Amino acid sequence: MLAEARARDAADPLRDYRARFDLPQGVIYLDGNSLGALPKATAGRMAQVIRGEWGEGLIRSWNSADWIGMPQRVGGKIAPLIGAAPDEVIACDSTSVNLFKLIAAALRMQPGRKVVLSEPGNFPTDLYMIAGLEAQGLAERRLVPRERIAGALDGDVALLLLTHVHYKTGAVFDMAALTRAAHEAGALVLWDLSHSAGAIPVDLNGCGADFAVGCGYKYLNGGPGAPAFAYAARRHHEALEQPLTGWMGHAAPFAFSDDYAPAAGVDRLLTGTPPILGLAALEVGIELAAEIGIERLAAKSRALSEFFRTCLDRAGVELDLVSPADPEQRGSQLSFRHPEAYAICQALIARGVIGDFRDPDILRLGFAPAYVSFEDVAQAAQHLAEVLKTGEWQREEFRERAAVT
Amino acid sequence: MLAEARARDAADPLRDYRARFDLPQGVIYLDGNSLGALPKATAGRMAQVIRGEWGEGLIRSWNSADWIGMPQRVGGKIAPLIGAAPDEVIACDSTSVNLFKLIAAALRMQPGRKVVLSEPGNFPTDLYMIAGLEAQGLAERRLVPRERIAGALDGDVALLLLTHVHYKTGAVFDMAALTRAAHEAGALVLWDLSHSAGAIPVDLNGCGADFAVGCGYKYLNGGPGAPAFAYAARRHHEALEQPLTGWMGHAAPFAFSDDYAPAAGVDRLLTGTPPILGLAALEVGIELAAEIGIERLAAKSRALSEFFRTCLDRAGVELDLVSPADPEQRGSQLSFRHPEAYAICQALIARGVIGDFRDPDILRLGFAPAYVSFEDVAQAAQHLAEVLKTGEWQREEFRERAAVT
Repeated sequence: MLAEARARDAADPLRDYRARFDLPQGVIYLDGNSLGALPKATAGRMAQVIRGEWGEGLIRSWNSADWIGMPQRVGGKIAPLIGAAPDEVIACDSTSVNLFKLIAAALRMQPGRKVVLSEPGNFPTDLYMIAGLEAQGLAERRLVPRERIAGALDGDVALLLLTHVHYKTGAVFDMAALTRAAHEAGALVLWDLSHSAGAIPVDLNGCGADFAVGCGYKYLNGGPGAPAFAYAARRHHEALEQPLTGWMGHAAPFAFSDDYAPAAGVDRLLTGTPPILGLAALEVGIELAAEIGIERLAAKSRALSEFFRTCLDRAGVELDLVSPADPEQRGSQLSFRHPEAYAICQALIARGVIGDFRDPDILRLGFAPAYVSFEDVAQAAQHLAEVLKTGEWQREEFRERAAVT
Repeated sequence: MLAEARARDAADPLRDYRARFDLPQGVIYLDGNSLGALPKATAGRMAQVIRGEWGEGLIRSWNSADWIGMPQRVGGKIAPLIGAAPDEVIACDSTSVNLFKLIAAALRMQPGRKVVLSEPGNFPTDLYMIAGLEAQGLAERRLVPRERIAGALDGDVALLLLTHVHYKTGAVFDMAALTRAAHEAGALVLWDLSHSAGAIPVDLNGCGADFAVGCGYKYLNGGPGAPAFAYAARRHHEALEQPLTGWMGHAAPFAFSDDYAPAAGVDRLLTGTPPILGLAALEVGIELAAEIGIERLAAKSRALSEFFRTCLDRAGVELDLVSPADPEQRGSQLSFRHPEAYAICQALIARGVIGDFRDPDILRLGFAPAYVSFEDVAQAAQHLAEVLKTGEWQREEFRERAAVT
């Protein structure tokens, strides 16, 4: 398969982008869905921000380097990747904190309704942030399996909160259909795009979505714990009231008045002082994704994961695929169920193939299209075939659980 | 005064620490209370985190570089600066977000009480975060001038929320006395240490404080928008329930269960994925402050601001000092009231003396003890005397307001 892989790499319109990332020698990185790789431009940009803007510019850089405008500027650059207008997206805080703001804001827009509907097995922080508002007495969490979601949209549902691409399986929700169903039932919709943004096309405005959040450190390559983003459709801006009313969301932060008055537009989603170092790194990653373009990223992502399946087939590997077999129905990952998934994942890492494990039995391999090559894919499939064939995953060393899995 | 200043610098036990910062040429920086200067070690440490830990280590660094332990590790290093035990402090989110968590947590511990007591003119975000909980129907904000705070502690007060060092005037609250008064009235106390940490001694545990928050980008020199910190006295850990229940505050984040169960100790104050770049820069700043030691920092801070007053006196400058005249009663700043404070501040900046302006009429000069010299102070006083004497602040260019003031 190596010859075929190389031929595909040679024909890949994205082949030159791999060199725009700093990738370690001897590693095949299939975990960009957990932490995206380092763009080569990031280190230089960060040195400039640190030495130039912070060290030389000091406090003046809030104006001269437009630090104060970074949440809006970076948010605006995410917008075309997710089908939003630039003034509908802002980069700030973590995905979790942004979930809290938008769930709370949606609940306030829905007097008489308290239910936030989601699915069991959604990414934990989404479910926990609903629980946080439930513990405040402001929400009622209702979890219904994904195939019964549409049927569970009754008159009590204030908000439907779903993760567009499932973190474990990679399965994609039909955003247009579910948004329509929610609206017909009088519910609002909040989409978590953590595993979508930068990997597959998203059309928030085309689907009539209300709110969205997403993660900066996966396919946007913003660095570990990068700031997240939040989206609110323009039609909701005026009514948007979120509880984390910090000074940066104020209409006039530097008037230092005692009473809160929300800023116009998505600016009111801001809370504290913007994290400049994190935003600067995130901006580099987003610019690179935007330069490649989401359609090309998605096309290559599908080609990579399909090629991986072909390689496994030809190597005679039979594994229980839990991701949808149709590449249009999944994100940029393939997940396999195996009772020894943890040990298999560790054995692959020992061979230089980095994927990840999701409790209790999922081996998850991500195909970040900006820097993963077809040769990576062919070799990774070969390693997986050998790990399974040799049974080397049975070694004791591969069973020891680390703090972060 | 220059000769005297130089003699003081020569005798200053902290004189060698100035060289541990990258300070721009031709600038006297008296705004470390707004954004602390860049430690020289930061750029190198950040390059290592970016190229080594992120670029080379990739996802493995959550374990191998102990990224997962950074909020606790960095928090633990702040602890000795504020009179806390290492397991009582955690670095995360912004000051604003941490205020929300701890105000909400305190309210839950106080059934039957809803009032959060503070003073008008407290830093806006503190007041706004109370307002955010008030808009949720969970709090009632009561603002009483500082001299009447103790008398306003009645049976409705759940929490007293005060900023230890006032951002505008630098006036210091008596933490021990007010904490005692609050406890006698059955209230809990949350101290905002944004203008205290790294500048003046704080003894949270000695005062019996309940909760605290603080800022990483002022005297801790953590960089623009650095992560903040939160403190909870150990006796409250078990009862602590905060509403931003994200996955990082879960007892077992990587078990990916649907239901939230809080982690032990201050870990339950975590919400989203830790911002590693921001935490790494903050850690460098904190280590430097800890190396110098808070008693030496505070002693020099007092000496610097007293020397500035002496220099102004000798230059015949009369300005309306709104900071307490007693250096023990103020933080590391001097604030002067003048109807043309904005233009005077701009004229000083044009001369290379960077202080700041606080609406509507305050010129605020900070004396960050780790890197400001007595010579800086003498020259700044001379510039201020000249600006006032020549009236150069009256130029049109000094009246134009920037976005961030």
